[in-house]
Amino acid sequence: MEDGVDHLAFERSKAQFDVDEMKIVWAGSRQEFELSDRISRLVASDPAFRKDDRITLDRKELFKNTLRKAAYAWKRITELRLNEQEAYKLRSFVDQPAFTDLHWGMFVPAIQGQGTEEQQQKWLPLAYKMQIIGCYAQTELGHGSNVQGLETTATFDPKTDEFIIHSPTLTSSKWWPGGLGKISTHGVVYARLIIDGQDHGVHGFIVQLRSLDDHYPLPGITIGDIGMKFGNGAYNTMDNGLLRFDHVRIPRNQMLMRVSQVTREGKFVHSDVPRQLVYGTMVNVRQKIVSDASVALSRAVCIATRYSAVRRQFGSHNGGLETQVIDYKTQQARLFPLLASAYAFRFAGEWLKWLYRDVTERLQANDFSTLPEAHACTAGLKSLTTTATADAIEECRKLCGGHGYLCSSGLPELFAVYVPACTYEGDNTVLLLQVARHLMKTISQLGSGRKPVGTTAYMGRLDQLTQYHSDVKKAEDWLKPNVVLEAFEARAARMSVACAQNLSKFANPEEGFQELLADLAEAAVAHCQLIVVSKFIEKLQQDIPGKGVRQQLEVLCSIYALSLLHKHLGDFLSTGCINPKQGSLASEQLRYLYSQVRPNAIALVDAFNYTDHYLGSILGRYDGNVYPKLYEEAWKDPLNDSVVPDGFKEYVQPMLKQQLRNARL
Amino acid sequence: MEDGVDHLAFERSKAQFDVDEMKIVWAGSRQEFELSDRISRLVASDPAFRKDDRITLDRKELFKNTLRKAAYAWKRITELRLNEQEAYKLRSFVDQPAFTDLHWGMFVPAIQGQGTEEQQQKWLPLAYKMQIIGCYAQTELGHGSNVQGLETTATFDPKTDEFIIHSPTLTSSKWWPGGLGKISTHGVVYARLIIDGQDHGVHGFIVQLRSLDDHYPLPGITIGDIGMKFGNGAYNTMDNGLLRFDHVRIPRNQMLMRVSQVTREGKFVHSDVPRQLVYGTMVNVRQKIVSDASVALSRAVCIATRYSAVRRQFGSHNGGLETQVIDYKTQQARLFPLLASAYAFRFAGEWLKWLYRDVTERLQANDFSTLPEAHACTAGLKSLTTTATADAIEECRKLCGGHGYLCSSGLPELFAVYVPACTYEGDNTVLLLQVARHLMKTISQLGSGRKPVGTTAYMGRLDQLTQYHSDVKKAEDWLKPNVVLEAFEARAARMSVACAQNLSKFANPEEGFQELLADLAEAAVAHCQLIVVSKFIEKLQQDIPGKGVRQQLEVLCSIYALSLLHKHLGDFLSTGCINPKQGSLASEQLRYLYSQVRPNAIALVDAFNYTDHYLGSILGRYDGNVYPKLYEEAWKDPLNDSVVPDGFKEYVQPMLKQQLRNARL
Repeated sequence: MEDGVDHLAFERSKAQFDVDEMKIVWAGSRQEFELSDRISRLVASDPAFRKDDRITLDRKELFKNTLRKAAYAWKRITELRLNEQEAYKLRSFVDQPAFTDLHWGMFVPAIQGQGTEEQQQKWLPLAYKMQIIGCYAQTELGHGSNVQGLETTATFDPKTDEFIIHSPTLTSSKWWPGGLGKISTHGVVYARLIIDGQDHGVHGFIVQLRSLDDHYPLPGITIGDIGMKFGNGAYNTMDNGLLRFDHVRIPRNQMLMRVSQVTREGKFVHSDVPRQLVYGTMVNVRQKIVSDASVALSRAVCIATRYSAVRRQFGSHNGGLETQVIDYKTQQARLFPLLASAYAFRFAGEWLKWLYRDVTERLQANDFSTLPEAHACTAGLKSLTTTATADAIEECRKLCGGHGYLCSSGLPELFAVYVPACTYEGDNTVLLLQVARHLMKTISQLGSGRKPVGTTAYMGRLDQLTQYHSDVKKAEDWLKPNVVLEAFEARAARMSVACAQNLSKFANPEEGFQELLADLAEAAVAHCQLIVVSKFIEKLQQDIPGKGVRQQLEVLCSIYALSLLHKHLGDFLSTGCINPKQGSLASEQLRYLYSQVRPNAIALVDAFNYTDHYLGSILGRYDGNVYPKLYEEAWKDPLNDSVVPDGFKEYVQPMLKQQLRNARL
Repeated sequence: MEDGVDHLAFERSKAQFDVDEMKIVWAGSRQEFELSDRISRLVASDPAFRKDDRITLDRKELFKNTLRKAAYAWKRITELRLNEQEAYKLRSFVDQPAFTDLHWGMFVPAIQGQGTEEQQQKWLPLAYKMQIIGCYAQTELGHGSNVQGLETTATFDPKTDEFIIHSPTLTSSKWWPGGLGKISTHGVVYARLIIDGQDHGVHGFIVQLRSLDDHYPLPGITIGDIGMKFGNGAYNTMDNGLLRFDHVRIPRNQMLMRVSQVTREGKFVHSDVPRQLVYGTMVNVRQKIVSDASVALSRAVCIATRYSAVRRQFGSHNGGLETQVIDYKTQQARLFPLLASAYAFRFAGEWLKWLYRDVTERLQANDFSTLPEAHACTAGLKSLTTTATADAIEECRKLCGGHGYLCSSGLPELFAVYVPACTYEGDNTVLLLQVARHLMKTISQLGSGRKPVGTTAYMGRLDQLTQYHSDVKKAEDWLKPNVVLEAFEARAARMSVACAQNLSKFANPEEGFQELLADLAEAAVAHCQLIVVSKFIEKLQQDIPGKGVRQQLEVLCSIYALSLLHKHLGDFLSTGCINPKQGSLASEQLRYLYSQVRPNAIALVDAFNYTDHYLGSILGRYDGNVYPKLYEEAWKDPLNDSVVPDGFKEYVQPMLKQQLRNARL
């Protein structure tokens, strides 16, 4: 607040709930809030972490800037003796993708999850101290989604007790792994295990990539950066890399052997460690992605909401102030469902954390019964929340009018850095189809008396749900959680049942599945939306501090559900769950709910507790002092270093003076 | 085709129509095709216009690169004695936003349209020869959409016969005008005309901004660039600028006085030139935007379609080739409606060209009767097509999987350079509400016997349309143009009527309008979609060469309409235009139509006739030789200049060697 004035103070005074209480709810717990609050302020107050200057850096400068910050972050982490969770928070709030993300987020967990005790003892201490830096080399130039189709080979040589890692084709080049291009010394490399000419599928191998002396790639290894990616700054801070192997030899004990082993004699054996462990890891990675979705979405919504209260346009009478754009119903109808989604995804992520703990405990007790459902459910929520968040960030940018197009709004970079989430860790469409397969399987097993569990439990009431007709008679009926929940259950169930019925018409089920892919994906979306709605409702049944907070969350929950109902009205009507009149009552109720959010909007985004540093947006400044700061920021562009720009004399002046014909261009 | 092989040759051999005939249809005429073909090849073959290197340039280098290309383009235009249309084409195919776009596209037309004969004689020859370079300075930091709320003042000083141009507030700073920041010598500046303390509204003034000697801003004028914008390259080639005036004096005859004048005595008078001329200009600008939408969309679709045929994923049996992703129904259901939209917008743009000619002729004959409808219709189509195109480019990027995130896919830059179209020349939501106002007015005037014209003519059949129930009985019925058209008419009419009925419940109509904004915007969308569908159908009634071409266009027209129907099924069902069974027959028909497009998909995008230079995408290469070229391109990144990156020794090595604690960071 450099001019010391809070231009949004009046907005804040209107809130009908205690924003500090909401901050705790958003964070998940008081400890979690205090941790985030402390670490985010630590980062924000340290000039070494400033990031407003990175937009104009060229690729090399930007990358060097990232290396400096990553090293400095590591220094602070060790100096302050931060624990794992604190260190993770600090890296998040630095808000600049770096090779360390992959080292800690993928390389270390891969060894933890897939390495034997001995392998862990050998490699983890080195990794924990960053004496080696690792990446996760799975995706290939020609294979992303289809992991089982990877082409890199690891051929066992019994003579030397080694694997020969090789890239047999151009498309087998590893492509995309973050941290690989320029920094990693090691990688967990996925390759087809070949023993005696026989293909044993894809496994992970620890491969040293670069010399620890001069950092040059080791013999037989070709590595490079894959080039510029979407956006200014954004993921260009990361050295996503390419990697080719020309018969590179590694010791046998560098295959990650927790689940499967290759013996000295070249025998391929499975350990008694359940292979399902892999799915546990996926559940974990994807639950983090859902949490991250709520963070990215809430940042965008915070920016758009604050600026919508600052910005005025039209509606002035007699020279008075114009209308704040947040007061326009079109703005509300676009913005408030996104605000509600941010909260909805937050609570879905929180629930997924519980689910992951539950799955882990069950796995340890050799109970695999909930695993397929948990796996489908996290896959679906990953797909749903990341697609919605990517779209929402862009929508928030548009909601800021022209100024959202300036990098200083923070939104272009937020978008560019976020969108890969729709593709990595499972392409969103591919994941939806996994959900759909699970749904079809669940339905087909109903006959055999298998009771559906977890988020598919409602399928156990198919008879009831296929008979369901909403009994909504007036707009307020749509505020009742059960009324909403049943409508979403009935819609999801009927769309799945319709797919199952259509599938049964095909002689070849797989052919039918392929033919009906688009319908199946829609049924999966309906199922996933139901999960998010139901977890929001469950959250409201928990102990929530403060009546004001509860009321706001109830409003947001209704907005989330009813705006989805409005958007997918065709589903609800065509399945006969509701009638047109009930649909229009929902829209009416939505308008009323928007007017209830309006006075609380600023406080609801304040509750995210983001520092101005983390938001990185002039439009989203806490104090609302937008225009003077936009003006100030503009002058920092390198083009403003000189009054007459480079190139003017050579290229433009001759045009103005009509000397162009003779000029050398 | 550097390896000389056309990897998509087999795809091309499957086409069921003559691609050369389709090229003519796409271009609009044989002359238009030949012109585009000739100029695009001219640009593509000239190394001075290469653009694959611009992604890694920093802001200053990028801007200099743009100045060089603009000057070189001008040189070629004069050397080759290109006419206006050819010059415009050449600038388009150079494909790099530059100050010249605004000079030719906004500055010159503003003088042509709003200047008197004398003003035109004075200024146009200078502008035509580029002895002065102009920009269009309308938007201000605090005012974009609300042009009537602009704050810059032009106060008449009768003593000196001058206007005093002044920026009274920070928010009155001009902000966004392209070409202003660094290059323009002159601008058409919009300001409130103040005479003797009285405000006469916003008018345009020709103001010299920079010295023609040393290019420095003239006294009292502050100019700068507004800073980095969304994306790599993209609009950062443009010097969007800020501009402040401190009591800058200009002669009275530099107010553009075709429509209104200020006399020597300071009297404000209107000429007999109809003020509606301004609307004619808007119709013209916006019809160009609709054409541009079809170009941007078709580029994205061309890239995504070709790469979808190249890319294979899953579905391999016994080690054979995997399935081309274009064969997946989910891919088809996302991609083919966009392909159909590209054609639909193309024909809508073509029709708007006719509309503009029609409006112009009528204006010259003092017939203003069709102007409001034409204005609403162009505003609506601008909004509809630009929103859809921006979303579609991003969807095409996602349809390319991870590789769409690489700048070398061309899609990130295409997106970043395109999205401002949703905001400039009328924010898309604001425009929809203008359409809605027109629709409400049209309905309210029905009672008084005023017959609706043009694209609102169907409103004259309200009685029939509110009684309408589709008589579709089998999927093929949805192929009949009239069946589709009536369903779209009935839906649009009923949504408008419902809004009108709800509005009538409010005592204060404006208050009601504000309350129902979101519904009104949806009704406007329905109306605009109807226009695009009906213009596509009309196109099919014209003389089309070749049976194969006609069949393909019929398929695309059906896909465009039915995919919209599927997307907005809630509208059609809730208004009772169709029933759920008919909705599902439409989906069934859509699946069949997708299978009909599939063998023709590559040829349908070949028909756009884009050079590889213009597409600027490795994924979209004509020859489909994607992977070797991606690999080759990666090595060009500056990060690959050295094996060990800048900053490694300072920041990473100490970490690996555990010397970080002592390092200076």
